[in-house]
Amino acid sequence: MAGGSDQAGPRVRCILKLGGAAITKKNEFETLHETVLTATIQHIVDSLRAGGNDKEADHIVIVHGAGSFGHFQASKYGVSKGGLGSTAHILQGFAETRVSVTKLNHEVVRRLCEGGVAACGLSPFAGGWTTHNRKLATSDVASVRKTLEAGLLPVLHGDAVLDSGQGCTILSGDVIVRKLAADLRPDFVVFLTNVAGVYDKPPSEDGARLIREIAVAGDGTWTITDPNDLAQGVQMAAAAHDTTGGMATKIEEAAEIAAKGIPVYIAKAGTPAASAAIRGTPHKSLMGRKEGDSSRTSLEPWTGTVLRPSGH
Amino acid sequence: MAGGSDQAGPRVRCILKLGGAAITKKNEFETLHETVLTATIQHIVDSLRAGGNDKEADHIVIVHGAGSFGHFQASKYGVSKGGLGSTAHILQGFAETRVSVTKLNHEVVRRLCEGGVAACGLSPFAGGWTTHNRKLATSDVASVRKTLEAGLLPVLHGDAVLDSGQGCTILSGDVIVRKLAADLRPDFVVFLTNVAGVYDKPPSEDGARLIREIAVAGDGTWTITDPNDLAQGVQMAAAAHDTTGGMATKIEEAAEIAAKGIPVYIAKAGTPAASAAIRGTPHKSLMGRKEGDSSRTSLEPWTGTVLRPSGH
Repeated sequence: MAGGSDQAGPRVRCILKLGGAAITKKNEFETLHETVLTATIQHIVDSLRAGGNDKEADHIVIVHGAGSFGHFQASKYGVSKGGLGSTAHILQGFAETRVSVTKLNHEVVRRLCEGGVAACGLSPFAGGWTTHNRKLATSDVASVRKTLEAGLLPVLHGDAVLDSGQGCTILSGDVIVRKLAADLRPDFVVFLTNVAGVYDKPPSEDGARLIREIAVAGDGTWTITDPNDLAQGVQMAAAAHDTTGGMATKIEEAAEIAAKGIPVYIAKAGTPAASAAIRGTPHKSLMGRKEGDSSRTSLEPWTGTVLRPSGH
Repeated sequence: MAGGSDQAGPRVRCILKLGGAAITKKNEFETLHETVLTATIQHIVDSLRAGGNDKEADHIVIVHGAGSFGHFQASKYGVSKGGLGSTAHILQGFAETRVSVTKLNHEVVRRLCEGGVAACGLSPFAGGWTTHNRKLATSDVASVRKTLEAGLLPVLHGDAVLDSGQGCTILSGDVIVRKLAADLRPDFVVFLTNVAGVYDKPPSEDGARLIREIAVAGDGTWTITDPNDLAQGVQMAAAAHDTTGGMATKIEEAAEIAAKGIPVYIAKAGTPAASAAIRGTPHKSLMGRKEGDSSRTSLEPWTGTVLRPSGH
């Protein structure tokens, strides 16, 4: 068992979250963001090729959001609010939401396969992931482990799931990432979004500044450690129909992961910064590695946010 | 708990197998048989509407084969023969096979939803169905039950799965149907195929005769009970690239189900006979019901094969 993992099962290099708002055009019904998705798939393919024959170190897990797949249906039928079983209307909404999110999952998996990656879709609903009053109740990490051990790349996604309290709800990809990170103990977690990282105010506003580093203690409290940035307010972009809580949820989930001792990189999907994050090589000074590391491949500062575990 | 079920869980009216050779054009790569699939979806929608508000009696489970989705990839990479993990080649074949079969599953589920049926895909691989040296080792009937209990219609499919003996293999839809029938104890099972039923010789040959009724004893032995047909040889059509064993497997699986006391109807997909089978109302004389039953809706004899449990 290599470093970075203290539990049974395969060593996982990276859990990679592809934000729905990044890989789809969030306000256009079931529309992929072709350029971003294509670039992201290529970044993943390149990162796996860079691993060479060391397949043991090459385990990654992908989780993607829904973006404009699923969100419209979920919103129309109130799927996140539950009520499944009370009316045929909600049942229909649940089913239509799943048709839409699995369509996106199929598209992501198909493109990975075309790139020569042996990827397999693992729908949370089908694997028995459920919630109780919107909180994760049951999961299926075992299938993810088995898929990795077989040499395949599991691709999960935010999904409509059964809820033992309110009937049904939406299980966000971010919650899935947190559970997988806790159980699989990856070397690092990457969130690829539609903005460069965490900003001190909404990034569309004048003067919004990217926060490059956040230190997260074991109890989940966090401090901005980028000496250039002492702002207090932290906000990110979130479209109005994001049924799973938008960026506030994302930062909370990311901080919870870093609190467990796992570095989290947030970067803009489809950019060189995203590629570096997937390879686990963002700007070295942010990584706490020694200066002069010969593996440093870029003189540009890495553009993104690192949530760095502190006090571990 | 209604009659026909002696186990815990929801009463299931019907497990319906849609043959891959029926709903796809088996020799044309990833091509749906549009007319047959459209008619079949409509038959399912009609059968559920006929159930009126008695949702308790309206539980059905659908399992479909792969046809020209998956079979080409599986054959090219030898997926059914295993070897997963030995080469990147096989891993890639496994992943590509799953992309193809899940594409068909998505299409079936999407069309059911468009027809107003709250259907949900349940990929066997994602649910943890596995084999050991090609024999079913683990299954996930619990997710099927939960899906039914929520009021949703589960749609499973023949899939590429992990095999603890040989690495990987193809799990046929027929094997899935047999396991589900044993555990869920449906009122009846329907196999919709690309021919009218079981014939005394290949149906493409001159003089091939449909066998209308086969009695199956509890030990699995069977007897042709149609008085017009005393032939010994039983054959059905099977395309050369059917990786899951073709019609011989189907008859074996069907007889195993009937041996458990569950009637099995085999009919040609997209025909009135298929519609009657899904509704559970094939020709009454074949059903052992009393003559003059007012629910008999057709004066034409039902065209299909019944595997009737005997001695139960």
